[in-house]
Amino acid sequence: MSPFTSRRQDAVSALGERALIREIRRWLGDASPAAPFGIGDDCAVIPPTQRHQLVTTDPVIHGRHFDDTVPPRAVGAKLLKRNLSDIAAMGGRPVAAVISLALAPETSTAWLRGFYLGLAATARKFRVKIVGGDVTQSPAGFFGAFLTLHGSAGGPRVLTRRGARLGDAIFVTGKLGGSRAGHHFKFTPRLAEGAWLARQKAVVAMMDVSDGMATDLGSLTPRGAVPSIWPQMIPVSAAAKTAARRSGRPAWTHALTDGEDYELLFVTRGVDELSFTHRWHQRFDTPLSLVGHFARRLAPGNVDWRSLHGYEHLR
Amino acid sequence: MSPFTSRRQDAVSALGERALIREIRRWLGDASPAAPFGIGDDCAVIPPTQRHQLVTTDPVIHGRHFDDTVPPRAVGAKLLKRNLSDIAAMGGRPVAAVISLALAPETSTAWLRGFYLGLAATARKFRVKIVGGDVTQSPAGFFGAFLTLHGSAGGPRVLTRRGARLGDAIFVTGKLGGSRAGHHFKFTPRLAEGAWLARQKAVVAMMDVSDGMATDLGSLTPRGAVPSIWPQMIPVSAAAKTAARRSGRPAWTHALTDGEDYELLFVTRGVDELSFTHRWHQRFDTPLSLVGHFARRLAPGNVDWRSLHGYEHLR
Repeated sequence: MSPFTSRRQDAVSALGERALIREIRRWLGDASPAAPFGIGDDCAVIPPTQRHQLVTTDPVIHGRHFDDTVPPRAVGAKLLKRNLSDIAAMGGRPVAAVISLALAPETSTAWLRGFYLGLAATARKFRVKIVGGDVTQSPAGFFGAFLTLHGSAGGPRVLTRRGARLGDAIFVTGKLGGSRAGHHFKFTPRLAEGAWLARQKAVVAMMDVSDGMATDLGSLTPRGAVPSIWPQMIPVSAAAKTAARRSGRPAWTHALTDGEDYELLFVTRGVDELSFTHRWHQRFDTPLSLVGHFARRLAPGNVDWRSLHGYEHLR
Repeated sequence: MSPFTSRRQDAVSALGERALIREIRRWLGDASPAAPFGIGDDCAVIPPTQRHQLVTTDPVIHGRHFDDTVPPRAVGAKLLKRNLSDIAAMGGRPVAAVISLALAPETSTAWLRGFYLGLAATARKFRVKIVGGDVTQSPAGFFGAFLTLHGSAGGPRVLTRRGARLGDAIFVTGKLGGSRAGHHFKFTPRLAEGAWLARQKAVVAMMDVSDGMATDLGSLTPRGAVPSIWPQMIPVSAAAKTAARRSGRPAWTHALTDGEDYELLFVTRGVDELSFTHRWHQRFDTPLSLVGHFARRLAPGNVDWRSLHGYEHLR
């Protein structure tokens, strides 16, 4: 289904801004509180908090993050989930979101309704309130929704990307690769896992895998070190294996470079990896893989990073 | 100057995402703190606060909010200032902003540098930190920057649009109208004025005028009342007078409907309007006008709202 329509009565331009905002509030239902804590004033209001606050922003744009084959509900869900994954990566708890919409006048009201219903269902599931936003007309053919998500730290510590040292172990959750087969719409942000990891003293750095592990691992790697990773230890998804059969490349290269896994990549120190894995599986069904450590140099048989290209935007 | 370039080496696509983000951090300079309190992690981190927090989001889009005649620094400044005006309208203090950019590959790096320098200068002036954001490729010909601004309440009370009653007086700051002559790039958000007004018990409701007073006043008007306003009392800007000479319409109709004034519109109760104005001018040079009150019905000579059209988007 396309976000754009040629039927005049289905176009958002037939509604006008005020009526459209009324509809949006109706579609969101109890996922959006009443003003002043929700839509309808100059600013949304969020209650005070004793903890550090987290803010992240990511959009969905037609032609870039989705196309006409994707149901509108999945697009709305993805918009929130990709931001939730960033909150998970800092060990935080999501609180409230605002959305800035850039809509071509020929945007379909029926499509937009599906988008907001998907967004609202996801907001309810993860206890996020949609507290405000903006609707602006964009040039013909453009649809973009830009969400900013606010969370609070899960505890006194905020887990950042910095903190890894030589010798630290590298873990990743879930299975990687093959995102183009649809995983990037179906994933579950690892909020419970991220919050638990941030409370473990042994975990010293964390991020989510959104551009592919080959690219993202660079942000965790300390100066003077390289990630010493064995291809055999990389958790390869079924979709990555299918992609490998088509491309003729090893499946683990798909796992490292396909992007949009939305899994957690983290670093531990001073803990027995087996007992850590044991404690993990007492709590979570989510797969956990020890993939390697930070070393001074690569060992024979390690992944050769120079041979891989992570996904870089705007190239 | 156009945000787009045909010179390959000036296009953001020649830089790539990582190099572009490095440049953005350089352009922002000390307007952007180091991670984890700034750009470079999954989320930005904002310190805890004892007060209610305010969140607002507004974009600038090429072809909609600016064209090639506007210098890039003015576009960057406007993006932040229009959000600052929303914080002012709740009596708040701005704290931190995140920006989601949607850039066509042919976006000019030189233009973008000007945009960020204008944004950074405005951020420094109003003590806002740019703490994070996202850069996403958009279809050719599209430039949009979507800013979300966080503030904190100026005091225990957050001043909303609700609260006016029959008989309350209506005030507006500054001069209105003629925004197309350039005012919508040159305005100063009324932060100091908004913070002071929120501390005055006599002020019961407030908003900023962004769509034109004729439209915005509807949000302040209590059920069963109408705004009884005399055209002679409306503060008309010089630009509105010029626009009136061209259009042949009375200048006060421009003042009420041109939009993008970014002045404060507020409602008082139980205070002598003359002494209130006196206290105002002990503090501020900004013009202040008493324009009318909420009545059961219009008086002869009042502005007839049915004859005016405020600006409605998406129509």
